[in-house]
Amino acid sequence: MTTRELNDFLTRTGPGTPMGGLFRRYWIPALLAQELPEPDCPPVRVKLLSERLIAFRDTQGRVGLMDEFCAHRGVSLWFGRNEENGLRCPYHGWKYDVTGQCIEVPSEPVESGFCQKIRLASYPCIELGDAIWTYMGPRELMPPHPEFEWVRVPSSHRYITKRSQDCNYLQAMEGGIDSAHISFLHRYELRNDSLHTGRGAALAGGTDVRFEVVETKGGMLLGVRRPAEAGHLYWRITQWIMPFHTMIPPYGDNALNGHAFVPIDDESCMTWSMTHHPTRPLSERELDTMRNAGGIHVRLIPGTFRPVVNKDNDYLMDRAAQKANKTYSGVKTIAMQDAAVQESMGPIQDRSKENLVSTDNGVIMARIRLQKAAAIAQQGGAPDGIDPATHRVRSASLVLAENASFLEAAADALHARAGVAHTSV
Amino acid sequence: MTTRELNDFLTRTGPGTPMGGLFRRYWIPALLAQELPEPDCPPVRVKLLSERLIAFRDTQGRVGLMDEFCAHRGVSLWFGRNEENGLRCPYHGWKYDVTGQCIEVPSEPVESGFCQKIRLASYPCIELGDAIWTYMGPRELMPPHPEFEWVRVPSSHRYITKRSQDCNYLQAMEGGIDSAHISFLHRYELRNDSLHTGRGAALAGGTDVRFEVVETKGGMLLGVRRPAEAGHLYWRITQWIMPFHTMIPPYGDNALNGHAFVPIDDESCMTWSMTHHPTRPLSERELDTMRNAGGIHVRLIPGTFRPVVNKDNDYLMDRAAQKANKTYSGVKTIAMQDAAVQESMGPIQDRSKENLVSTDNGVIMARIRLQKAAAIAQQGGAPDGIDPATHRVRSASLVLAENASFLEAAADALHARAGVAHTSV
Amino acid sequence: MTTRELNDFLTRTGPGTPMGGLFRRYWIPALLAQELPEPDCPPVRVKLLSERLIAFRDTQGRVGLMDEFCAHRGVSLWFGRNEENGLRCPYHGWKYDVTGQCIEVPSEPVESGFCQKIRLASYPCIELGDAIWTYMGPRELMPPHPEFEWVRVPSSHRYITKRSQDCNYLQAMEGGIDSAHISFLHRYELRNDSLHTGRGAALAGGTDVRFEVVETKGGMLLGVRRPAEAGHLYWRITQWIMPFHTMIPPYGDNALNGHAFVPIDDESCMTWSMTHHPTRPLSERELDTMRNAGGIHVRLIPGTFRPVVNKDNDYLMDRAAQKANKTYSGVKTIAMQDAAVQESMGPIQDRSKENLVSTDNGVIMARIRLQKAAAIAQQGGAPDGIDPATHRVRSASLVLAENASFLEAAADALHARAGVAHTSV
Repeated sequence: MTTRELNDFLTRTGPGTPMGGLFRRYWIPALLAQELPEPDCPPVRVKLLSERLIAFRDTQGRVGLMDEFCAHRGVSLWFGRNEENGLRCPYHGWKYDVTGQCIEVPSEPVESGFCQKIRLASYPCIELGDAIWTYMGPRELMPPHPEFEWVRVPSSHRYITKRSQDCNYLQAMEGGIDSAHISFLHRYELRNDSLHTGRGAALAGGTDVRFEVVETKGGMLLGVRRPAEAGHLYWRITQWIMPFHTMIPPYGDNALNGHAFVPIDDESCMTWSMTHHPTRPLSERELDTMRNAGGIHVRLIPGTFRPVVNKDNDYLMDRAAQKANKTYSGVKTIAMQDAAVQESMGPIQDRSKENLVSTDNGVIMARIRLQKAAAIAQQGGAPDGIDPATHRVRSASLVLAENASFLEAAADALHARAGVAHTSV
Repeated sequence: MTTRELNDFLTRTGPGTPMGGLFRRYWIPALLAQELPEPDCPPVRVKLLSERLIAFRDTQGRVGLMDEFCAHRGVSLWFGRNEENGLRCPYHGWKYDVTGQCIEVPSEPVESGFCQKIRLASYPCIELGDAIWTYMGPRELMPPHPEFEWVRVPSSHRYITKRSQDCNYLQAMEGGIDSAHISFLHRYELRNDSLHTGRGAALAGGTDVRFEVVETKGGMLLGVRRPAEAGHLYWRITQWIMPFHTMIPPYGDNALNGHAFVPIDDESCMTWSMTHHPTRPLSERELDTMRNAGGIHVRLIPGTFRPVVNKDNDYLMDRAAQKANKTYSGVKTIAMQDAAVQESMGPIQDRSKENLVSTDNGVIMARIRLQKAAAIAQQGGAPDGIDPATHRVRSASLVLAENASFLEAAADALHARAGVAHTSV
Repeated sequence: MTTRELNDFLTRTGPGTPMGGLFRRYWIPALLAQELPEPDCPPVRVKLLSERLIAFRDTQGRVGLMDEFCAHRGVSLWFGRNEENGLRCPYHGWKYDVTGQCIEVPSEPVESGFCQKIRLASYPCIELGDAIWTYMGPRELMPPHPEFEWVRVPSSHRYITKRSQDCNYLQAMEGGIDSAHISFLHRYELRNDSLHTGRGAALAGGTDVRFEVVETKGGMLLGVRRPAEAGHLYWRITQWIMPFHTMIPPYGDNALNGHAFVPIDDESCMTWSMTHHPTRPLSERELDTMRNAGGIHVRLIPGTFRPVVNKDNDYLMDRAAQKANKTYSGVKTIAMQDAAVQESMGPIQDRSKENLVSTDNGVIMARIRLQKAAAIAQQGGAPDGIDPATHRVRSASLVLAENASFLEAAADALHARAGVAHTSV
């Protein structure tokens, strides 16, 4: 049972919290690369793990991510001038480089060495997979770069977006590892969405379903099996890679989908949505569909990462569509269905009131793994999921003989193999 | 004097509070019946006494009122599917009947008996007088159904609405039992409103006015008398029935009016407005007037119970109308004048700063009665106002001989008598 | 260093705080006179030093400023009727005169003397310089009236406005005594604004600049010097008069400008902007420019004192203008540039994180002076800046011989002299 104490433990990721300590051991997707499209472009405010930061790309194209506020008098560097390899505070012209090092204080003589003593908290950034990632933990413990397949394929094979959610990261992520809700919440979408065709879609409403959870080195496998042709089972296998990555089992010949659920602060998170194909560019039809809020992607309020459909407008609830079985919940699109139910639990779900069942084993296991990993991180150990080898995995959907061990039979399918397409029926 | 402690005592009605314990001993108007217009219609969110609830009408037409959040993972059942005699959570299909009993958990085998163990807190509902009432207290102490005259007349004789107020119930209700403010705050409306004609209206501004407060079994009588023809007094008598019902003295041959002031939470309340005629249907003229925000009714923001005129727009203050004596306060309509001054006191008025006078005797008495009743309720006793006999009363306006005891002389007039019109001059 | 404790000390001005005690020893600009344009005009809500007050002008033209809420039941007197030398509560007709004395309680017999016992907290007001000033401290310690030059010149020589800021008064005021930021934040405005022409504007971007801070009886002089023609220095001298008045050094033949930074509450302040010429009426061109948000004045949302450009719209950030060196920060107009950076520090800047340098000596000195003055005020002593003699000063800009003491050489220029124009090059 998740007590209030454990719930607090799992959901708080600010500086100084145990879970915050764990999250600061991983590379975290912080911005879309296109948010900093070119050298000396405008700086961007970023809030991560309850820290207010400013991101900028300098004249040489390097990305900096540091404390939002000038070390001098506390002005937001969002008003800063991004010029000549540094971000300059508009108030008195103090200038910082991408490492947070102050490199100019106009009022002080250069020879005083004053500005060398001034340094903003800053976090190293890398660009991978059209995203800017940062590492917010102790430098000596920095892990190797992430190696998720979606970051390694060519840009043409990938489409990624992000959207904010008005709830804690954990309830969003728990939606991502909760295979059981698909047949309910998304029942009608799977039958109608052009990016969700294939066997899984047709079977979505079936009832003879079994769920299996298998721990892996980097996280978990969540297997769902249904009866298939005689003597066979149809398997759909989700990957969870710690601390917040998921890989959704594929549908037919469509591309792979995944999410990362990144805490903004304790009451909101950024849900990243990644679509990629291992072996071919995404087609214009696929891209068009996603740009028009198809698949797992959503329409955003221009200039923001907030969905147009959100809690302030009751997710544009359509009761007639719900009644007519066009949508199960009255909310349109898979992504917003997830967001709606997750946000409806409140900014931080009170898990002490839950009643979990066997289909929640994945959720239960994830909490245990996170709790254990936080303890390991507190002792300076290496938590699961920081080893890039654990990233090189895939989700899969496949038909196996009834008596086959899915772990053995699907072993290849569950690993990212360069030049080999994913396994999907 | 109302200390801060007593003020807290009187104004807090959430679970576990003494006043909350008292209120949970009465039938409470929760929704207009038309909010749940037909079987399997959309569920409705209701907040009562600081509890977040969901109301729905099932396939058989029965009304349920229960905890808003699914017992499984905390999703709001507002997204629920109302189908086949139960409300189904859209996340994993858990289904509840109108008693809050879980009747289906799709993932669990029926024979496990799992779902029988799951039950949401729920409150019994009845439909009376075009309203849905609920009882939120201990089942063994449930009182008989309310018998206010407005709930007992045919629907054609009645018009009821509700509107939210941005303040604690007590300061709204205290307005309802404060006869003294009529001659000031509503001075000009009484002369001009077609539903407020009659002797009282003409005399509204008079100065030789006396106030009398008489305790009754169910609450209080608030008598206001003014000089009438030689040797006579013109009396206007308000009823207060515990814990939050008021009956406004009538004007001429107009229908009777009353209110119920129901806590939403400690900083807002729902003000119900009931107009009824004991012996005849309301006329089209009367209904039209009320539908157009006449009498004690107001215009609402579509899809909400929030008045169009509200604190966010400074109640559309019209200083010119105030200066020209078209309105006394610059705010239009009796209902919004009340709301404006009540809300201006703050979400919860700090009564420790008051300076009460003799015309506040009704207010003082109500606080004493509520305080006493809460103590009785805490001991499991029967607080005043739960006996339906105390509901079968009326307000009245009448002329009595100077030396008559108004209690004796108006005894008949102050009781609801089937088939006999109210006493009003 | 400014610890968190000292930061709290300096920034909290509500009742009972040390800094609140200090501020309550001065005459404070509370309203523009035009906010109460004529006898019996509508009352106006005013929040000052965290106190919610109501201002009104009675039938005789006298101004009252008192507790916003009626002593009876707590209704806001903003709904009050301003009639026959008093403000009448719309609820039960209680009436107050400009001293807060209750002068009528309609329900109580006059002979009872009841209303004499009722008095709202109220503060004496004076009208000076098109502003209404109030004194919120102990009556026996009331200082003489303010004698700033801008209040003493004819109305034709003066233009004053006010605007609210979403931050504590101190960070706004510190901007006003921070000469060093001009060359950065306002660099491009000084070259283009028709009310900021003259030598100072041309030199704004110069680098060989020295700052001097000199304590005065009423506050501080902040001198900035730059090289001028051979053997000479160009001086710009700002005045700070306690507790929150600043006088900006003039530009060429333009009028003088100054500010007062008045706490609304701890998280917002009212920034007053005063432009005056000591010896001539302001021209139509000057007035037109200021009415159109020129100079130090801004465009306001109609019916409010909130700037049209504000944090909710990111100050209409124009990145292209910033990049093209049309504005240094991307924000338009001097006033809103100041507001933007000041507000960006948060509602109350955390000064414990600052790194101050020598050009912050004025800021450091002001904090010390305020801290000392609060201690003196707590002991009932006379803090600096309450003596009107300290108000009769001016800012100046002038060229002095290199070896001259600016204090001696500019002594005349730094005093307000009737009939003599200010010193400005």
